[in-house]
Amino acid sequence: MSTANIVSKEALLEHWLGHRNLTRRVIEAFPEKELFSFTIGGMRPFSDLVKELLSIAVPGLQGIVSNTTEGYNHDLKLETKAELLAQWDADTPKISELYNQISEERFQENFNLFGQYEFPVIHNILYFIDNEIHHRGQGYVYLRSLGIQPPFFWER
Amino acid sequence: MSTANIVSKEALLEHWLGHRNLTRRVIEAFPEKELFSFTIGGMRPFSDLVKELLSIAVPGLQGIVSNTTEGYNHDLKLETKAELLAQWDADTPKISELYNQISEERFQENFNLFGQYEFPVIHNILYFIDNEIHHRGQGYVYLRSLGIQPPFFWER
Repeated sequence: MSTANIVSKEALLEHWLGHRNLTRRVIEAFPEKELFSFTIGGMRPFSDLVKELLSIAVPGLQGIVSNTTEGYNHDLKLETKAELLAQWDADTPKISELYNQISEERFQENFNLFGQYEFPVIHNILYFIDNEIHHRGQGYVYLRSLGIQPPFFWER
Repeated sequence: MSTANIVSKEALLEHWLGHRNLTRRVIEAFPEKELFSFTIGGMRPFSDLVKELLSIAVPGLQGIVSNTTEGYNHDLKLETKAELLAQWDADTPKISELYNQISEERFQENFNLFGQYEFPVIHNILYFIDNEIHHRGQGYVYLRSLGIQPPFFWER
């Protein structure tokens, strides 16, 4: 097995935080009402997708750092755009703080995330990022359907 | 600058190929007609999003490997689902082959991708993957809107 490495711990955090900047702008682009009510094809409104992201990032990292396997709870009591954005902004520095507590060795170790997803820590963290991109892409369709131009995907 | 590394070259390729497996299943899930015609909010049909992905992955890697900065061309002559899937399947082994020709040192070097995007090679490759997740997430909304259950996001 080769151990050639190409993404540093610092670079992956920076990559994630860049995605979070963009996701924040997508939340901001939604009108208050549609953020909580607009759906397509029986999917969840974008506010619920954001609550999923919020209930995964910091709680997931907390689980990894403190080695606890409590389940997640997507049903957060955030009922306005301002509340969602405030939680988003409160969580961003917590992500950096928790992430930086994970040693490089730990990234390769298995962890039973939320008592349910037994994978190497690096897989769990890549999943957090991928899942954010996935749901944000869905938010882009909602915005387009509402006649609103989403932020450029490549701006972070 | 720390050089602590957490994602190996091999692991990133495996991660990308896992995403490609899932994207292939999303293409397959579309009915022939809707793949090329269904849109929401003035967006492109999913076939055009797939053509964008096809016109970035192998051509982008070819540019990196051969140090050429020719522009991309998203307008591929692929007019049926079978043609799209055949191109997808032809490209997957080419991705591995080209990717494996990029040295670890090269991943950190700047490259003017498509004569237009001057970034470290690793950023360009992460962009390929992120862009695939982004557009595939949009395909999920199209499928839901068509009443079709998309494949599970976590299955690769």
